[in-house]
Amino acid sequence: MSTKEFQKLPAPKAAPDGSIIVPDAPSAPNPAEAESPDVWGFRDTRFDINERERVIIRGNRYEHSGKEMPRLLPWIRETLNIKLDARDIFRPSYPTTIPEACVSSQFMSAIKEFLSPGQLESNGEIRMRHGHGHTQEEMYAIKYGQLGRIPDLVVFPESEQQVASLVEAAKKNDVSLIPYGGGTNVTDALRCQSDEKRMIVSVDMSRMNRILWVDKKNQIACIQAGAVGRHIMSGLRKYGVTMGHEPDSVEFSTLGGWIATNASGMKKNRYGNIEDLVLDVTVATSAGTLERTASSPRESVGLDLRRLMFGSEGTLGIVTSAVVKIFQLPEIQEYGSVVFPTFEDGFAFLYDLCREATPPASVRLVDNLQFQFGLALKPASAGLGKLKSRIERVFVTKIKGFDPYKMVACTLVFEGSRQEVALQQADLYRIAARHRGMKAGAENGRRGYQLTYSIAYIRDFLMNYYIIAESFETSVSWTDALKLCENVKRRLYQEYAKRGLPGSPFVTSRVTQLYRTGVCIYFYFGFYFKGVANPQDVYLDLENIARDEILNSGGSLSHHHGVGKLRRAFLPRIMSPAAITLKREVKKSLDPSDIFGAGNQDLDIR
Amino acid sequence: MSTKEFQKLPAPKAAPDGSIIVPDAPSAPNPAEAESPDVWGFRDTRFDINERERVIIRGNRYEHSGKEMPRLLPWIRETLNIKLDARDIFRPSYPTTIPEACVSSQFMSAIKEFLSPGQLESNGEIRMRHGHGHTQEEMYAIKYGQLGRIPDLVVFPESEQQVASLVEAAKKNDVSLIPYGGGTNVTDALRCQSDEKRMIVSVDMSRMNRILWVDKKNQIACIQAGAVGRHIMSGLRKYGVTMGHEPDSVEFSTLGGWIATNASGMKKNRYGNIEDLVLDVTVATSAGTLERTASSPRESVGLDLRRLMFGSEGTLGIVTSAVVKIFQLPEIQEYGSVVFPTFEDGFAFLYDLCREATPPASVRLVDNLQFQFGLALKPASAGLGKLKSRIERVFVTKIKGFDPYKMVACTLVFEGSRQEVALQQADLYRIAARHRGMKAGAENGRRGYQLTYSIAYIRDFLMNYYIIAESFETSVSWTDALKLCENVKRRLYQEYAKRGLPGSPFVTSRVTQLYRTGVCIYFYFGFYFKGVANPQDVYLDLENIARDEILNSGGSLSHHHGVGKLRRAFLPRIMSPAAITLKREVKKSLDPSDIFGAGNQDLDIR
Repeated sequence: MSTKEFQKLPAPKAAPDGSIIVPDAPSAPNPAEAESPDVWGFRDTRFDINERERVIIRGNRYEHSGKEMPRLLPWIRETLNIKLDARDIFRPSYPTTIPEACVSSQFMSAIKEFLSPGQLESNGEIRMRHGHGHTQEEMYAIKYGQLGRIPDLVVFPESEQQVASLVEAAKKNDVSLIPYGGGTNVTDALRCQSDEKRMIVSVDMSRMNRILWVDKKNQIACIQAGAVGRHIMSGLRKYGVTMGHEPDSVEFSTLGGWIATNASGMKKNRYGNIEDLVLDVTVATSAGTLERTASSPRESVGLDLRRLMFGSEGTLGIVTSAVVKIFQLPEIQEYGSVVFPTFEDGFAFLYDLCREATPPASVRLVDNLQFQFGLALKPASAGLGKLKSRIERVFVTKIKGFDPYKMVACTLVFEGSRQEVALQQADLYRIAARHRGMKAGAENGRRGYQLTYSIAYIRDFLMNYYIIAESFETSVSWTDALKLCENVKRRLYQEYAKRGLPGSPFVTSRVTQLYRTGVCIYFYFGFYFKGVANPQDVYLDLENIARDEILNSGGSLSHHHGVGKLRRAFLPRIMSPAAITLKREVKKSLDPSDIFGAGNQDLDIR
Repeated sequence: MSTKEFQKLPAPKAAPDGSIIVPDAPSAPNPAEAESPDVWGFRDTRFDINERERVIIRGNRYEHSGKEMPRLLPWIRETLNIKLDARDIFRPSYPTTIPEACVSSQFMSAIKEFLSPGQLESNGEIRMRHGHGHTQEEMYAIKYGQLGRIPDLVVFPESEQQVASLVEAAKKNDVSLIPYGGGTNVTDALRCQSDEKRMIVSVDMSRMNRILWVDKKNQIACIQAGAVGRHIMSGLRKYGVTMGHEPDSVEFSTLGGWIATNASGMKKNRYGNIEDLVLDVTVATSAGTLERTASSPRESVGLDLRRLMFGSEGTLGIVTSAVVKIFQLPEIQEYGSVVFPTFEDGFAFLYDLCREATPPASVRLVDNLQFQFGLALKPASAGLGKLKSRIERVFVTKIKGFDPYKMVACTLVFEGSRQEVALQQADLYRIAARHRGMKAGAENGRRGYQLTYSIAYIRDFLMNYYIIAESFETSVSWTDALKLCENVKRRLYQEYAKRGLPGSPFVTSRVTQLYRTGVCIYFYFGFYFKGVANPQDVYLDLENIARDEILNSGGSLSHHHGVGKLRRAFLPRIMSPAAITLKREVKKSLDPSDIFGAGNQDLDIR
């Protein structure tokens, strides 16, 4: 009996009672949702300075769109201790030189057998867009420098079979493939290695974006890897369910990208991280398709290579689809916020919250600088004075004894049944009060989360004014977390001063994820670079110093951004020599000719 | 900075405030806890038939020890439809022939460099005990047949360094190593391959049994792989914490074994399965020690070979220690039980429980036959009549309209704060009532869980009376679960009848784990074999047929028992050819000379 051939069980069929749904293919991309090639996000949205010298978000996509933020420039000048001139623009030269394509004609002939002309793209700007993610050095390079190497071709497969055939053709013709999801990577994972001699083909998964089936009874759905987060959300919402996975990039990142990066969503307390959500993956590898007869709620079937796909960063194969858990939409969603006199108070609150109660879907604690930043982003309102007096007016008068230059805020998203949420709120506010926390209202919480999406545009805006900034993250035990934050900040200030760089840097941290055993810490680091040669390299140097300090302080190499090429040099610091050796051996065994040659994690084995 | 050498962060030191504890080494093994070599469990406990022809559990270890179970033999006779004669004993010849040891003198010289004489054991019975787990065919073989091959030597390493040196010596001298934890495996994973020509060395981890440190603040502990479940429980309980992992074998199985088997504990609803509980593992591999600088709450650091150790079944290396999550001991623990008119009612209740509420730490639903079995195991009490009338007296008179030959029972363990437990109970009993469930009391629930440990002894007892029986399990979606149970039972009855075997078989199922996406189903299957040639092979044949039916019905190859050698022939049924190929390639890359040559999962690559 055991010798029957492998045969995937048939996909679920639509059930008349609606318990199994086979959705239609999504409609063609909406032109209103076009994305910028040169900066983060949708084309219809960007930060700008208006004629009154006030920062404004153009367009009308977000809640904050179209509103003036009169305090932002003054606050930046004050915080960075610089004389930022709104008319002095560091003008980008996007697109900078686009490298010539290096094309294997045999490969081209081979793929034309199964791909139509509309599935091949050799346009230079599109190739360039597929050759980077969103690290500061990549964004700097495409506007002010140059990318050494970019994909020579972009292909848009439309089926699992086409992906498999692409892998086959790449294998036969010595071509390197780099899978491309939403292009939001922040560890140089999409960047091509400048010494790659082979033709590089970017495999853009955007046309494999279907929700194949939704099984409401068993609370699972099968989704193609190229489906974008926001479409997964809206697509599932129609049927009253959600995957619950919302990384900050959810507007653009894809299911395949989440798996390849081992992503974490802001509501993980309720729904889990990506590794908790995915039950099964189908992967095109150099040896064929890695797949299983059926997905299982949980199993013990030995060596399971699918597990290696989490965090594989395009180095082992191309994820084509996944079976994921889904959840009924919560009965209610409510925001909340609490302010604390100090970061230490807020942190102690988080610890007790994890120990004594069920934390809500999302909990974030920002430090004082980020708290100030949030206030500086507030839209215009009547009678604004100086920042300091504004903070004082808003808070000090209201919250007795809170120092506006020390206080911090915690934002909250509650999801669940009315009863669950009520219990979570009661527990949470009781514990917060014990740590001198004061409720600051649902509106402040809601605003904090809404800002997540629009604020992502600010980095590219600031670069036009000689400010370079980026985020990086780690995970760390409760015991080491506060010290780690202090160490990283102190070290960056020290190193910044040592280099005689302009003004003061901006270094801020927030706690973005809670675990019983520790937290995720998310840093923003930025500085003014007018007059600084190769600011992107200076930034990178300082970021590496911060990472060194993080590792010394007991932090991990990454909580959810991944390793890519940005952090690969640190791997020997965190893994034993045997772990490094065997990692490379496993890569060799899974992809002996390094077809998946992105070179992330030092897995360029050629 | 990144080029610093790998260096494990120092282990936590005991903190004066008790937040970090470094426990003393456990005391020497207690002779009162000696285990039987030939049957399951402690030497002081066994099932027996007394002079009044009543089954009794000898010893006084368990709650049910020393008590007569007057209904058991009659119930077995009735259910199996046989004339079991209590005086007709199928007498075991344990130990059956013990194969000669095949010894590599070079290897012996090499290991004597770092192991003392007390760490080497060549006694035949001890070697034999290390050459099997607890499948029916292994237990039958050691008593009535013969094991083809057993370890040629048993070694007892006492440190990570000694394990590493053993691996080195094995590599140099072409010796095969098989790690040994508690010896409770049920998939022939410990059985030696009869065609193994090399010296086979069983690496008994029992002396690496320390809880190295307990970090209460971050809720983690570092424990050596050879620590036995019951000692982990008692060792942690001293400090007010628990790991919460309680597989049915928890009295004997070890942390290393749990990882290697990808184990599941009965309280997983509260604490998670082993893969949820382990944050870090240290593993001796053929390339050296796989380890990390520090453990992290959660991370994204790319290809992480440690994940492959879950379910590795001794084929990739030897787990020497792990960092695991720990939990405060729950404020309260309460048992409960509910009876339902039919299995279908109980199953519908489980589904709603998962959808609408937080299920308690453990929930089990037994079918009617297992419910009857539970009653048949009840100790003597006054005025017993026939089984049928007993069931009727106990239940029908109390629970109107319940058919004693259809009704089923659900047993429950609640753990948590008073408030959590109260909420869980309120929700659960409300949902149960909707499905015609009637509360059957905490005592019946408690008894059900207590029986788990003593009932494990019954299999070896019954073998003495020509009854062969064993369990197997699967995981399956909610949709397919009921049908799967029916299919397996029908198929086994059919095949049993077809073969003209004696009486009727015993086939029963229970739901032992709940997931939002499905359940774990646990089967018991047994039959009377007097007059049947090679009953162990007949059993195996029928078990394979059951597995075929499970796979056809959408079930998995295993929920938590694993693959071992027992189920390896089915792997090509559930994994694509590429998955099988790459699995072997990965094994080759991690262990090119097949030092870890147990041959599980068809990973014998030589």
